[in-house]
Amino acid sequence: MSTLVKGGTIVTAGDTYEADILIDNGIIALIGNFLEAQVDQVIDASGSYVLPGAIDVHTHLELSVSGTVSSDDFYTGTVAAACGGTTTIIDYADQMRGEPLAKGLEARLAAARGKAVIDYGFHLVLTDYNARVAGEMAEVVSAGVSSFKCFLAYKGRSMIDDGTLLVLLSRSKEIGALTCVHCENGEVIDVLTRKLLSEGKTSTRYHPKSRPPEVEAEATGRAIALAEMALAPVYIVHLTTAQSLEKVRAARARGLTVYAETCPQYLLLSADKYDEPGFEAAKYVMSPPLRPRSHQGALWTGLGNGDIQVVATDHCPFNFKEQKELGREDFSRIPNGAPGIETRLYLLYTEGVAKGRISLNRFVDLVATAPAKLFGLYPKKGTIAVGSDADLVVWDPKVRHVLSVETLHQNVDYDPYEGFEAMGKPTVVMSRGKVIAKNGTFLGQAGTGAFLRRKPYPGVI
Amino acid sequence: MSTLVKGGTIVTAGDTYEADILIDNGIIALIGNFLEAQVDQVIDASGSYVLPGAIDVHTHLELSVSGTVSSDDFYTGTVAAACGGTTTIIDYADQMRGEPLAKGLEARLAAARGKAVIDYGFHLVLTDYNARVAGEMAEVVSAGVSSFKCFLAYKGRSMIDDGTLLVLLSRSKEIGALTCVHCENGEVIDVLTRKLLSEGKTSTRYHPKSRPPEVEAEATGRAIALAEMALAPVYIVHLTTAQSLEKVRAARARGLTVYAETCPQYLLLSADKYDEPGFEAAKYVMSPPLRPRSHQGALWTGLGNGDIQVVATDHCPFNFKEQKELGREDFSRIPNGAPGIETRLYLLYTEGVAKGRISLNRFVDLVATAPAKLFGLYPKKGTIAVGSDADLVVWDPKVRHVLSVETLHQNVDYDPYEGFEAMGKPTVVMSRGKVIAKNGTFLGQAGTGAFLRRKPYPGVI
Amino acid sequence: MSTLVKGGTIVTAGDTYEADILIDNGIIALIGNFLEAQVDQVIDASGSYVLPGAIDVHTHLELSVSGTVSSDDFYTGTVAAACGGTTTIIDYADQMRGEPLAKGLEARLAAARGKAVIDYGFHLVLTDYNARVAGEMAEVVSAGVSSFKCFLAYKGRSMIDDGTLLVLLSRSKEIGALTCVHCENGEVIDVLTRKLLSEGKTSTRYHPKSRPPEVEAEATGRAIALAEMALAPVYIVHLTTAQSLEKVRAARARGLTVYAETCPQYLLLSADKYDEPGFEAAKYVMSPPLRPRSHQGALWTGLGNGDIQVVATDHCPFNFKEQKELGREDFSRIPNGAPGIETRLYLLYTEGVAKGRISLNRFVDLVATAPAKLFGLYPKKGTIAVGSDADLVVWDPKVRHVLSVETLHQNVDYDPYEGFEAMGKPTVVMSRGKVIAKNGTFLGQAGTGAFLRRKPYPGVI
Amino acid sequence: MSTLVKGGTIVTAGDTYEADILIDNGIIALIGNFLEAQVDQVIDASGSYVLPGAIDVHTHLELSVSGTVSSDDFYTGTVAAACGGTTTIIDYADQMRGEPLAKGLEARLAAARGKAVIDYGFHLVLTDYNARVAGEMAEVVSAGVSSFKCFLAYKGRSMIDDGTLLVLLSRSKEIGALTCVHCENGEVIDVLTRKLLSEGKTSTRYHPKSRPPEVEAEATGRAIALAEMALAPVYIVHLTTAQSLEKVRAARARGLTVYAETCPQYLLLSADKYDEPGFEAAKYVMSPPLRPRSHQGALWTGLGNGDIQVVATDHCPFNFKEQKELGREDFSRIPNGAPGIETRLYLLYTEGVAKGRISLNRFVDLVATAPAKLFGLYPKKGTIAVGSDADLVVWDPKVRHVLSVETLHQNVDYDPYEGFEAMGKPTVVMSRGKVIAKNGTFLGQAGTGAFLRRKPYPGVI
Repeated sequence: MSTLVKGGTIVTAGDTYEADILIDNGIIALIGNFLEAQVDQVIDASGSYVLPGAIDVHTHLELSVSGTVSSDDFYTGTVAAACGGTTTIIDYADQMRGEPLAKGLEARLAAARGKAVIDYGFHLVLTDYNARVAGEMAEVVSAGVSSFKCFLAYKGRSMIDDGTLLVLLSRSKEIGALTCVHCENGEVIDVLTRKLLSEGKTSTRYHPKSRPPEVEAEATGRAIALAEMALAPVYIVHLTTAQSLEKVRAARARGLTVYAETCPQYLLLSADKYDEPGFEAAKYVMSPPLRPRSHQGALWTGLGNGDIQVVATDHCPFNFKEQKELGREDFSRIPNGAPGIETRLYLLYTEGVAKGRISLNRFVDLVATAPAKLFGLYPKKGTIAVGSDADLVVWDPKVRHVLSVETLHQNVDYDPYEGFEAMGKPTVVMSRGKVIAKNGTFLGQAGTGAFLRRKPYPGVI
Repeated sequence: MSTLVKGGTIVTAGDTYEADILIDNGIIALIGNFLEAQVDQVIDASGSYVLPGAIDVHTHLELSVSGTVSSDDFYTGTVAAACGGTTTIIDYADQMRGEPLAKGLEARLAAARGKAVIDYGFHLVLTDYNARVAGEMAEVVSAGVSSFKCFLAYKGRSMIDDGTLLVLLSRSKEIGALTCVHCENGEVIDVLTRKLLSEGKTSTRYHPKSRPPEVEAEATGRAIALAEMALAPVYIVHLTTAQSLEKVRAARARGLTVYAETCPQYLLLSADKYDEPGFEAAKYVMSPPLRPRSHQGALWTGLGNGDIQVVATDHCPFNFKEQKELGREDFSRIPNGAPGIETRLYLLYTEGVAKGRISLNRFVDLVATAPAKLFGLYPKKGTIAVGSDADLVVWDPKVRHVLSVETLHQNVDYDPYEGFEAMGKPTVVMSRGKVIAKNGTFLGQAGTGAFLRRKPYPGVI
Repeated sequence: MSTLVKGGTIVTAGDTYEADILIDNGIIALIGNFLEAQVDQVIDASGSYVLPGAIDVHTHLELSVSGTVSSDDFYTGTVAAACGGTTTIIDYADQMRGEPLAKGLEARLAAARGKAVIDYGFHLVLTDYNARVAGEMAEVVSAGVSSFKCFLAYKGRSMIDDGTLLVLLSRSKEIGALTCVHCENGEVIDVLTRKLLSEGKTSTRYHPKSRPPEVEAEATGRAIALAEMALAPVYIVHLTTAQSLEKVRAARARGLTVYAETCPQYLLLSADKYDEPGFEAAKYVMSPPLRPRSHQGALWTGLGNGDIQVVATDHCPFNFKEQKELGREDFSRIPNGAPGIETRLYLLYTEGVAKGRISLNRFVDLVATAPAKLFGLYPKKGTIAVGSDADLVVWDPKVRHVLSVETLHQNVDYDPYEGFEAMGKPTVVMSRGKVIAKNGTFLGQAGTGAFLRRKPYPGVI
Repeated sequence: MSTLVKGGTIVTAGDTYEADILIDNGIIALIGNFLEAQVDQVIDASGSYVLPGAIDVHTHLELSVSGTVSSDDFYTGTVAAACGGTTTIIDYADQMRGEPLAKGLEARLAAARGKAVIDYGFHLVLTDYNARVAGEMAEVVSAGVSSFKCFLAYKGRSMIDDGTLLVLLSRSKEIGALTCVHCENGEVIDVLTRKLLSEGKTSTRYHPKSRPPEVEAEATGRAIALAEMALAPVYIVHLTTAQSLEKVRAARARGLTVYAETCPQYLLLSADKYDEPGFEAAKYVMSPPLRPRSHQGALWTGLGNGDIQVVATDHCPFNFKEQKELGREDFSRIPNGAPGIETRLYLLYTEGVAKGRISLNRFVDLVATAPAKLFGLYPKKGTIAVGSDADLVVWDPKVRHVLSVETLHQNVDYDPYEGFEAMGKPTVVMSRGKVIAKNGTFLGQAGTGAFLRRKPYPGVI
């Protein structure tokens, strides 16, 4: 099976140029300007950009939490991803208390198998550490899981203490894994939440009061300090505030290996959503919460100058009906999270590239190349180069469309960006050479996505 | 004429992958893995990297200064560049007092024509500003000179005052040009120099005392402040100190468009050279001077995390005999400058890539891609992509060799890095598809280099 | 002549305590709790604070500038000062082009003599420097003028270049003088002003556009850098912006000896005054101009934590009629300055102490003790201690009154704080033991003020 | 009983002037220049400074810890303090698990009663928090204990979690108490200590490795972040590193109410002490440990510019024999602490005042006035003013002497400053008007010290 993607402008993290792409057996075989080649299939990309399929390194499909399950499973979630131009995800597997790490991984592999329509990998969430776990960590890295995640939030659930984080960072460094940290101070959140509830402040508007910006900045600084002591790299997930970013920047300026990820919701939405009447605000209940608008400029600057390396989604959808409603009487019971796996490129292209805040190349780096390099998928994924998987997105920058839950594929009953006028859209999305979506219609089939055995963290990118 | 570069690992600012390159008529036509194609010439790049030809945006060939002329002319200088893997330079043309800007440009075009063996462009140095000049600035930008340079140093010669810099920045922004600034406080240098000389401190060791680090940091901060007021981008040439870098970083963190260049001499050599006995120290008399070693770590960190975007050379050679000797009795009469056009890649690869301080991709970005993008040469120059000029360097990372004035091609009687053990060497260097150097032997001919009409500064890179 | 100040609460920079003060021959002789002493005069200070007479180190009485003369002479100005609780001023003498420094000083001594009602000193403004001047600088220090002032603003008038500032700083250090610098970039102001006027932007609202905050922050950073190179202390006059303050703070954190002064107008008034209709805005035309309100918080924090050491006034009044009106058609011709010599304590006490932003002791330090120590007047002036001059202010914190040009003594036809509700007022003001004002009525007589021969700058305070 | 202190130079935090002091009934009654007054006692202070008696707000007398008891009890410790010029201490009382707070306080009151020779107060150490404790906190504040202390170090012993610190800060603010925090990350220390011991790294030289500078900087930043969230003031005890200081400075620059204390050992001694052969290094085992010398410059700058407000001692002596030896085989068992209650003024005067790093007034502020104001003892203690307790030190700056365990009064068998050549010495020390020490000889008697009921924290100082 051979395919020719013809007439487009190829955009990678480094380059922008016009050329055709010849795909053979799902792999990019040739890049150049061709006479009409003898191929099975020709895709016309004239007037469009051809981008590497995007990679979302922060998703939560069919996640059990707060007594419910996130509403996208590995099928619906990856279909939505595909339609939006994302061709790889890295989701999470959990350490099961007292069980081998492999067991948690197997559970998630089983969940994805037969459903996922794009390729996928997993980070492994660690909550306990001991000598046995240390040994198993090396095993899972060998098995293709070269990143671990841990939490400084969620006291009594996944929160780990600073000593444990220190040894995890150190151990991960040793075995070629990157440590991802959710940075919010869980002790403080616990106190603030109990205080608010005890004062009868139970409505949704109090969610952000239970985890203010300082809670994140403090924990970000702490995670960095621990990484410095461990001489280990660290990856800060969903960074949302100017103060956290300043800590990342200062660390990088001192020569530390610190990476930061942010998400579209923190770039586009702001805390005034929590003032919406009734229970509407529950749609935006996530952790960290949306921040005052003043933080957004700093985040955009960080995307532009390289202090933030990755834009992911933290896609974790819950239906407004029945799911979000679990917390109608108590904000702390609202399942935390919002959908985003499908809309990331629309939002970042429109607000970032089209408004001149970031270049096209930087856009590709943020959503595809840097994630691939950091998490051991490069050069198989994350770029358009000879030998890479033909995960391609034909992106028509001229299309204007309006985001709506009516037309999006995410399995959730609302969209936080309802009514947003987007610029640019994928007209064709390919996974390993196969067209899986066209103009917003999914054309693939369940189970064609494969588990990706990721390589170790490379050290410098 | 067609050429196949076969078996190498292509490295760009964004990517690293194995593929062959087919060149047709000096242009990269195809990238892929080929059966034996029907080509005129095959270059075996097995086991080597294939890099885009490097770009040196800061050279001073046959520069008249201090009553003498820099010892490399456009022939010898570009031959040396070519042998070292540099296939494009941007040198300087001067505004001639009272004359149209075009006149200064023509003088330099005439100097280069018939001699240069690689492609070249010019920045235009501005020393006077008035309404007529403002008009001519737009003309030279149209003529392919999309960057201006000015000096905060050299009182009574090229130094301009802050008001003039402000309007230059503003006017350049307006017409799509990037303003490059030499940041040292010329008023202070003048005072310090006169004071030292009046105290009989005339020997070479006093050169750095006449322009200490604070002189640069102050002027860097001032140039940035003026750029902020002009809402214009600014490019700081030859940044050398941790304090200057901190000012650049802080400005970028505030969202300003500030770029910084450093040079190998500031990364590898340090101020203790000025303590060498006799007149040896004159070899290192340049401006800014070499700095205490403590600054180097900060510069390397800046290269790694993106706060410094370009490594150029400030190549400005003077023979130790007869030329440097002009200042034997008075350090202020030593012609300022040192050679470097040929050795840049050796030094940066060995100390940067081989020692793990920067990635291969970052190396390419620093010496080729970022300079091309900033100065309007991209994508014709600065990368390996279909449609780009086939300016290629086959870089064998396994070769170890020792730098020596005996074997280097620069027309100067000493080398600051004499005896340096380098890793990696260009086995083949191509300019627009023609092999112009092999294993350190120049194979091209005088005058094949062409003047490059550069595009305007692109805004974001 | 002996006087007993009875029943008050003495407040100094360090202490607050209840005690009586016995004054003998104009000097504080005893502090304690007394039986009815045998004295010539008893002043009842019950329920009031007794403060050291305030010192205003930045005034411009009968200053010739912009073709006019500031409207307060040494009589009216010092009467106003006295009524407001200020018992010492340091005004300025100018270097007259080509003349000995002493001549400029003598001119001002002659102006003050017979008029001033409180004690006074002078800073000497330097505009030229050469070997002769260097020698004379030592002479004027010996004559009691231990501080020099220079300007980075006012191109073509008093502006000096960076080289000159460097040598002035160095020379001043050598001879025990403190260098005061007006930090605005005169080159930039010149360009901006000409540009605005050439565009027909001549109305008063353009005054602040001609000297934006960056102009001050840049020059502040530059003055500090030069002081660092000269290894000399530096005193920044009328600091107004958060960015300038940050530069001062960073310098102090590095161990540099940098002092900063601000003025009530920058703490209380803001740039929206320039939006007032008609020519009203001219009342607020001063340099630096009023700033956006956002800077004020930073300044108050600086007062509280010691990063700003002095609050002076830059009192330089011009009548709205006839004087300010000189610039009705061209903002650049409006005489720069505003009155403030009388209102400083009212404003700082009300907004600072009464609102809990600064302590009473800090208030005293800012307006009296620190100025005295920095400028060689301590312990004769600036505190309440045995042996010090009995310059005292009985301050009743319970009095509330409204500021108005109708009741103030400044010889000017408007007040920038008209209608301001002040808390606290001096019920008695004494100069060297004599009551010179009571409840806002001047009781002294012309010419009783004496010239103060100030001691050298002490090094650490 | 009346006393005249005659002929000295009085030095307070704000002032320096020559005057006599008349003391009546232990209180300063008059300050002035007297004829021979009719007094019971005359003390000649000619040629000397007269300072307020110093206050040491960080001592640990007869502290039970690590299975032993600090070697100075309330008698020997206060005798040593007195001989060194300290006339007030604030030591610690502990919350006893499950008992009312009052009980812990009573235990310490009982310990001090009948022994202390100078006045004393207590901070109360909190380790548990609940509603009952919240109520009792208000009671102890009323009882004169207006400061609490807690620990981020000492896991499993006194360490509290972040949530608890947050509520303690908040509650303390509410009731007028100041919260003092020991800032080291106990979780990390626990991990590092166990790791070192498990690797057989048990010797004393590993003590600093178990608690490196980052451990303190992180915790300092965290304590400040929590104080910011609680809108409460915070007092950082024994700050030792440049990084911690930078966090304090940045917080103060943002307007937060953060205070910092350092100790002479961190200003004078450095980590190379841990390289001493044999078990000698144990003499310097304290927490935080001594730091590399590079931190000292920053601390001195902080003392000079006001970023550090207090110099205390953390006096916690253990005999080298038998006590320090408990940890001969395991550094973690060495009782932490060193003596210093007697030598503080010698060290700070010699290295600070005599070397020109800080002024005399600043010296007094750091050791007496600021501690008194922060901890509710002012103006009874901490200054020389009419109405204050006559706690006075006649300090002869001309005396040079050598510190030695042979002559010091501290009840411990070594001195960390053995052989240090000190400048300045108290020739007379008075407590409430009584001479308790002369020229290093104690003249007082056990039990004359009184418990000080301290006032609430004043808000601004």
